Amino acid sequence: MDQFADAPDVLRDVPGRKTVVRAGSAEIGGGAFVTMAGPCSVETERQLMETAEHVARAGAQVLRGGAFKPRTSPYSFQGLGREGLRLLAMARAATGLSVVTEVLAAADAEMVAEVADILQIGSRSMENYSLLEAAAHTGRPILLKRGMAATVADLLRSAQCIVSHGNPNVIVCERGIRTFETSTRNTLDVGAIAVLREVTRLPVIADPSHAAGRRELVPALARSAVAAGAEGLLVEVHPRPEEAWSDGEQALTFEQFDTLMAEAPRWHELRAEAAVA
Amino acid sequence: MDQFADAPDVLRDVPGRKTVVRAGSAEIGGGAFVTMAGPCSVETERQLMETAEHVARAGAQVLRGGAFKPRTSPYSFQGLGREGLRLLAMARAATGLSVVTEVLAAADAEMVAEVADILQIGSRSMENYSLLEAAAHTGRPILLKRGMAATVADLLRSAQCIVSHGNPNVIVCERGIRTFETSTRNTLDVGAIAVLREVTRLPVIADPSHAAGRRELVPALARSAVAAGAEGLLVEVHPRPEEAWSDGEQALTFEQFDTLMAEAPRWHELRAEAAVA
Amino acid sequence: MDQFADAPDVLRDVPGRKTVVRAGSAEIGGGAFVTMAGPCSVETERQLMETAEHVARAGAQVLRGGAFKPRTSPYSFQGLGREGLRLLAMARAATGLSVVTEVLAAADAEMVAEVADILQIGSRSMENYSLLEAAAHTGRPILLKRGMAATVADLLRSAQCIVSHGNPNVIVCERGIRTFETSTRNTLDVGAIAVLREVTRLPVIADPSHAAGRRELVPALARSAVAAGAEGLLVEVHPRPEEAWSDGEQALTFEQFDTLMAEAPRWHELRAEAAVA
Amino acid sequence: MDQFADAPDVLRDVPGRKTVVRAGSAEIGGGAFVTMAGPCSVETERQLMETAEHVARAGAQVLRGGAFKPRTSPYSFQGLGREGLRLLAMARAATGLSVVTEVLAAADAEMVAEVADILQIGSRSMENYSLLEAAAHTGRPILLKRGMAATVADLLRSAQCIVSHGNPNVIVCERGIRTFETSTRNTLDVGAIAVLREVTRLPVIADPSHAAGRRELVPALARSAVAAGAEGLLVEVHPRPEEAWSDGEQALTFEQFDTLMAEAPRWHELRAEAAVA
Repeated sequence: MDQFADAPDVLRDVPGRKTVVRAGSAEIGGGAFVTMAGPCSVETERQLMETAEHVARAGAQVLRGGAFKPRTSPYSFQGLGREGLRLLAMARAATGLSVVTEVLAAADAEMVAEVADILQIGSRSMENYSLLEAAAHTGRPILLKRGMAATVADLLRSAQCIVSHGNPNVIVCERGIRTFETSTRNTLDVGAIAVLREVTRLPVIADPSHAAGRRELVPALARSAVAAGAEGLLVEVHPRPEEAWSDGEQALTFEQFDTLMAEAPRWHELRAEAAVA
Repeated sequence: MDQFADAPDVLRDVPGRKTVVRAGSAEIGGGAFVTMAGPCSVETERQLMETAEHVARAGAQVLRGGAFKPRTSPYSFQGLGREGLRLLAMARAATGLSVVTEVLAAADAEMVAEVADILQIGSRSMENYSLLEAAAHTGRPILLKRGMAATVADLLRSAQCIVSHGNPNVIVCERGIRTFETSTRNTLDVGAIAVLREVTRLPVIADPSHAAGRRELVPALARSAVAAGAEGLLVEVHPRPEEAWSDGEQALTFEQFDTLMAEAPRWHELRAEAAVA
Repeated sequence: MDQFADAPDVLRDVPGRKTVVRAGSAEIGGGAFVTMAGPCSVETERQLMETAEHVARAGAQVLRGGAFKPRTSPYSFQGLGREGLRLLAMARAATGLSVVTEVLAAADAEMVAEVADILQIGSRSMENYSLLEAAAHTGRPILLKRGMAATVADLLRSAQCIVSHGNPNVIVCERGIRTFETSTRNTLDVGAIAVLREVTRLPVIADPSHAAGRRELVPALARSAVAAGAEGLLVEVHPRPEEAWSDGEQALTFEQFDTLMAEAPRWHELRAEAAVA
Repeated sequence: MDQFADAPDVLRDVPGRKTVVRAGSAEIGGGAFVTMAGPCSVETERQLMETAEHVARAGAQVLRGGAFKPRTSPYSFQGLGREGLRLLAMARAATGLSVVTEVLAAADAEMVAEVADILQIGSRSMENYSLLEAAAHTGRPILLKRGMAATVADLLRSAQCIVSHGNPNVIVCERGIRTFETSTRNTLDVGAIAVLREVTRLPVIADPSHAAGRRELVPALARSAVAAGAEGLLVEVHPRPEEAWSDGEQALTFEQFDTLMAEAPRWHELRAEAAVA
């Protein structure tokens, strides 16, 4: 445990102690399984509303969707920005879902926090400490994704950074690490999920979409993450994945998402019973 | 799929086509969940018999135990060798379990095959082609473990090597890869399990013990592997792990093993239902 | 080369075409070897002035020193901030060295650019696109460090991002990647240096200090980087490394730095002759 | 240094203590730079004789060439075997070069040792302990290549294994490790070379060909390895690389090899002077 000494405030010092994060109508880490689903990017009103309505009906609690996208080229699609936030707010109003969306720049934190119930810090930003600080100060719960080359200790250090800026509501998310293997986009590290469940009081969720890289593999990785202890999933879903403006290959169709939603809670239940032992 | 073009004879060319491996009383890949359990090393008659009887009662089908150990120093414990094989045969006779044990050297293949129902090729030997050939020629089923730096494509190439020497009965085993993460011994690659289930007709199992590196994490990794699609588990169990001659930290106690055995089939069942979708 | 297609404006389309970056009195990529040296952090006036005067006398062209440090904890040393920039300006005035210092947050870019001749983008920030944009807009040359899990293609994509915001003066820096090896802090990827020299018109330098992790290894890695084609070095030097406020283990003593400076140009010369062939 | 505690007999306990390996007419680790060059595989008498004569004239001391190849498929080229050994012996007689060639199977160790001045243990075999033992017992010097996922500590443990079987004449060889980077075949770990030079008494050489994966990058990696401290190089050369039966993309042409041979000793000299400091 010495490797986690830099993250004292997120460790599970008292046995059984858990942080339960409340975000809009959703509760993460409280025992119930949580699904955060939606498109990679918010594209159009129709695309977002269709998706939000579908995932709400299927049982998701949180709508995901990027309004600000980390893109290298100033010429490529950067996300809809404020307009994307407006559409997310509209989808929340229509469905009752909570909203999680990424904040990329410290200067945008307040603006994003006006709409988002949960601010997402992406993998590329896990060690962007000024962003972590700005996000922490909004008071919104933070979904912190593991960096592609970050150890579990690194991830908890970044979580500690947020907590020490006065915001205890952090959810950590395993999303695959970069290794030599090329048959998946990233290597989903279920060992990290198991270690996180053991050492931290924070809720732990998983993103099987970015690990898989193609939709056929998402259900197996989703199950596997839940079995390892993930308390929720962050999943990409699109009404017409082949038309998606970004990451279409890894987005589930509505039908695939429905199947996943029929299954995941049973895996979580089995896991919960097991955890008693 | 182009990346697997070098392994044509192990791919699932016909949808649903599966290799079912029969080894003694056990059947791997036929739909029923298979547990291979036992100590890292065969140490004493008492240790092996106690373990064999316990794992048989708990529902395992196969007894694992090393008679030949890959050890660097000529001064450290190399395994009991022939005497280890004798004890494995005795344990089989007493319990009805099948036996899987590692063969390290081509020259030993025939000798090990006289006792073993399944010959194990260890991670360090995955690309030892003369050993693969010698093992193939014994006619025994082969349990082929993935190398620490081997891609899924590399693993299937080695499986192909065995098959092209006339032995179609290969079981492939994910056991964790080497990455930068240090909170687990190796990084269990559940994505590889999912990909293997998709592309190969061979049975796919997982070794959560070597991935975890410490027993507390083994159940979570075991569940996770099954949820990803593993058709069986290879698990280290020891009557008194703290006294084990090798790898004691990752060996389950009998009590932990019983809990796992109560659980694993339910995970496999849930997975089997899911797979219909 | 297809893997570099996203970075068209930094590739060497015309054979021999090179970007020469001018920054204060220094010129990078123009054929002469460049040394950027100084402490990890600016600590005190005495520490910085001593170091600046020493490295200038020894032949360095650029003074490095962090005024803003990427630190997880709000309680640990964050760098001297504005006061650090003031000291850097004072050291430049006294020695004629150019100054390179890291900018961590987009909001600080203009302020840092008032003092810095070169803005450093650290490894953790390589994919912080809003920071890249803000840094680009200052018009100052940018020193872009490779991320710990970034491929050469990823690095060039980030360089392209800066260039497409109208700033062609980018220097790329190899500083070690994260691998399973633990006997060095990071794995210096000299193959990446060789590939970069082949494909990009941008100047390529190396940071042997962060790759090594301890000062004894720095000279060997410095030589090796130059031999692979690095056109300059970014090196940590401290008057009393054992008293350094950060990264003291990898800082060269003045004596070690002098030895390096006696050597490095000869390696560079040999490399330059070789490159003719 | 604790990480190397399992390899006591290969550490440099006495400052400056070095193992000098004598093999035929060659001496490795004795201060003079050593080049081992030749084709990946021995193909034909003409190909081998042409290459041997050329590399001898250019100043190489050792002829490399594979008679036994690690190939997965029983249908692909396995090397010429005994006939390859015969041709190597013929080339040695004609040129005075020493011969290094790989032994893949313990059963072949004696046969290969009848011809080889140095037995090569390939990357895939680094932890094949029965092969290490058989090779050690031949009494021939051993060239031990680092495994693709082996740490420096693992490499020294395998070297220790050979030494504890009574054979002190081991040369260790860095040849690139497996990482996420794809612009080179493997990542040449020059930090490992520097660490090895620091901790072991054994001669340390490098194989830039397998790290590079294509011939254009070989010279840069060769220089870089020498600058990091490599005492020799193992390089692939072919009279007509485009016609090579294996690994043709990474074989140097004769012309490229001549350029390398004109350069490498100057790098080594510069390194030797530097090492005084």
